[in-house]
Amino acid sequence: MRSLLRVSEWSVPDVAALFETARSMERQPFPKLDGMAAMVFSEPSTRTMVSFQMAANQLGMHVCQLDSIGSSLKKGETLEDTLSTLEAIGVRAAVIRAGDDWPSRLSHGFPSMALVNAGSGQWEHPTQALLDAYTLYQEFGELQGLKVVIAGDVAHSRVARSNVTLLKMMGAEVILSGPPFLSAPELDGAATWMDFDEAVAAADAVMMLRVQTERHAADQMGIDGSYLAKWGMTEQRLETMQPHAILMHPGPVNRDVEIASSLLNHQRSRISIQVKNGVLTRMALLHWCLQGGRREQLVSA
Amino acid sequence: MRSLLRVSEWSVPDVAALFETARSMERQPFPKLDGMAAMVFSEPSTRTMVSFQMAANQLGMHVCQLDSIGSSLKKGETLEDTLSTLEAIGVRAAVIRAGDDWPSRLSHGFPSMALVNAGSGQWEHPTQALLDAYTLYQEFGELQGLKVVIAGDVAHSRVARSNVTLLKMMGAEVILSGPPFLSAPELDGAATWMDFDEAVAAADAVMMLRVQTERHAADQMGIDGSYLAKWGMTEQRLETMQPHAILMHPGPVNRDVEIASSLLNHQRSRISIQVKNGVLTRMALLHWCLQGGRREQLVSA
Amino acid sequence: MRSLLRVSEWSVPDVAALFETARSMERQPFPKLDGMAAMVFSEPSTRTMVSFQMAANQLGMHVCQLDSIGSSLKKGETLEDTLSTLEAIGVRAAVIRAGDDWPSRLSHGFPSMALVNAGSGQWEHPTQALLDAYTLYQEFGELQGLKVVIAGDVAHSRVARSNVTLLKMMGAEVILSGPPFLSAPELDGAATWMDFDEAVAAADAVMMLRVQTERHAADQMGIDGSYLAKWGMTEQRLETMQPHAILMHPGPVNRDVEIASSLLNHQRSRISIQVKNGVLTRMALLHWCLQGGRREQLVSA
Repeated sequence: MRSLLRVSEWSVPDVAALFETARSMERQPFPKLDGMAAMVFSEPSTRTMVSFQMAANQLGMHVCQLDSIGSSLKKGETLEDTLSTLEAIGVRAAVIRAGDDWPSRLSHGFPSMALVNAGSGQWEHPTQALLDAYTLYQEFGELQGLKVVIAGDVAHSRVARSNVTLLKMMGAEVILSGPPFLSAPELDGAATWMDFDEAVAAADAVMMLRVQTERHAADQMGIDGSYLAKWGMTEQRLETMQPHAILMHPGPVNRDVEIASSLLNHQRSRISIQVKNGVLTRMALLHWCLQGGRREQLVSA
Repeated sequence: MRSLLRVSEWSVPDVAALFETARSMERQPFPKLDGMAAMVFSEPSTRTMVSFQMAANQLGMHVCQLDSIGSSLKKGETLEDTLSTLEAIGVRAAVIRAGDDWPSRLSHGFPSMALVNAGSGQWEHPTQALLDAYTLYQEFGELQGLKVVIAGDVAHSRVARSNVTLLKMMGAEVILSGPPFLSAPELDGAATWMDFDEAVAAADAVMMLRVQTERHAADQMGIDGSYLAKWGMTEQRLETMQPHAILMHPGPVNRDVEIASSLLNHQRSRISIQVKNGVLTRMALLHWCLQGGRREQLVSA
Repeated sequence: MRSLLRVSEWSVPDVAALFETARSMERQPFPKLDGMAAMVFSEPSTRTMVSFQMAANQLGMHVCQLDSIGSSLKKGETLEDTLSTLEAIGVRAAVIRAGDDWPSRLSHGFPSMALVNAGSGQWEHPTQALLDAYTLYQEFGELQGLKVVIAGDVAHSRVARSNVTLLKMMGAEVILSGPPFLSAPELDGAATWMDFDEAVAAADAVMMLRVQTERHAADQMGIDGSYLAKWGMTEQRLETMQPHAILMHPGPVNRDVEIASSLLNHQRSRISIQVKNGVLTRMALLHWCLQGGRREQLVSA
């Protein structure tokens, strides 16, 4: 029984093993787990929750969804106590998303239940990083030496933060770019900042980030009709990418804001492949958590 | 893989085949499908959603419910992009209900995922029409020549609109009736309008519509304590029906508004049978969509 | 097919049989039921809903969750009509929670669907009483003659009411205690009221109740920082319990209000065991309802 709360808990061999498991899961039949996975989401989600549900169901697990309004949390119970209850009920894996850095609120582990971080505020989204890394691995065979540009609303992006950590661990060079008013100064040491057009031309892969309008007042941030031309992926900008370079986006897309509508199904786009890989890598992760080893979870509070 | 967005997409042989499949499903064991059906409901529903879930589960499918608040839609994603994501995740059938004419918003089909319309505003509710038609078929052996009265809040009723189209296609004569202030002028060409008492006396089946108080200000529309006596099915009015005629209602019922409480379980009432037939016909429809043919879905945008 | 709406519907042999079934279910494999259980919750719940879902899934049943906002109920349908619809859809068991004494609103039974009360306002919570009684039975071998103290927010507690009835039926002596402003005068005849410290010292088991802050204005009721010292279970108070006595709590816990945080995992605490037993006893109850006899449900309206 293992948990995964932060990308930094993985080692390079862990990720290699996860890639290998995901690859083997591209071919059915799947290995079977059983028991119940609980979806504990206090932020709305379609793709991540359904993706985890599909992953769990395909592995033979039941799924329950906890009310997004919080139910027990609403009654003043701590997240930790809610999780203890789920563990006592017999839930084998709790998949958790919340708007704050909730892993920091946990003071102890759960010996018979795996925790999986499906998003914690702007800090972590490890399974998005895993599916992105797997998509690059599928495309290029290895991540070592790849130039990956992550561009756009870096400030509010847990996808960016988790990707920076994982891609660097796997040997890729990460370049951040986008509007300076959406940059994340705390990432300066971890990744290079580059002018957007220069970054696009240098990249093996360009990952456009969603402008998270639900996390800021868009109009106050200078995000208006000119954003696409200045900071989005347009057809003209796509032409400047290297011939082999690919275009990625974690979704959901703001069409014609960070990316031109016409490019979603472009031959360079891997957006739909990323979604498919989300299910595969989450199956691999659930398998890794529930079957993959004897390492007990360690939560660093 | 086929979709069903509008009643008009069915042909007479399609409906006959669906009837035949539903009839065979009255006897277990059911044929087995697998994979996941996603319930994408942005309007509240009990009977339709649970009915589809029962249908999917009995066929061996997993079910996921998307948050009715919209999740990705809330983040500004289009319905089409949400559906593309579900398709990439591997969902085999998306069952969709929304308050507008959402099928008109779709510009392309989904080759590996069936779409099923579980309600689109006041325009379409094809599976309700199918279960109603199947109930008539069960009762009378054929629909050709049947006089079916649809009475009440026609103005706001997708049930009425879908039934008019399907019943006429299958050879029934459809008569609309009810309070003039709840009529639907655009249906004048499609169905006869008749005085309520006259219609009740002429009918082989009377389908009373729910007064959709959530779609209009009831008191402003003249819907008060006198509605039942004037425009509802009372015991006295029931006595004037032909001896073989049956009483139907799509539910949920406003007791003692459009129908007298005492009639819900009357021997002429098929209300409970309609609910049972809802599961059977939705099983037949899912089977038809996922297994029934090679015809690709065509969405006329 | 049997239902369970009120603790008083059980007989002593019923409870003994449920204990026996629950005990046998501690050892897998479980007996298998099939079909669908519907969760009809109009009050938020984590532990009870997930516990029932786990119970149903482990017995092989599918589960559907009805929208807590009410869907059909929102459209003006009565609970009884919603349940009739679920029965016609083929649901085998409806697990219901609502804020009022909803069993009193039912005028008839449902011959092919079991009803299970998962909470009705402040009146009944029979499955909580069952799991508490089973926990005592596990601990002490029998309930006859046990002194069980139920202390705290008795006024708002359906847990207290259901436990008083069940524990007395099984031969235990029930002692109520806590702040007088949270007492329930209507229970005076059914249980002894005792000074809190005296009660703690006399008990074989102390069941601390959650202060249901969502049901009253906490600050107006004198519930402040002094509540724990005056009316809660502290380490000092725990020391005065008999050596063999155990500590229980139905959850969710208000840490350091009715119970000191440090005591949740104390060796006397059975809080986590209670949660585990919740799944076992709900499995036993579903089995009892769906397989356990030919007694038809009787609803006393």
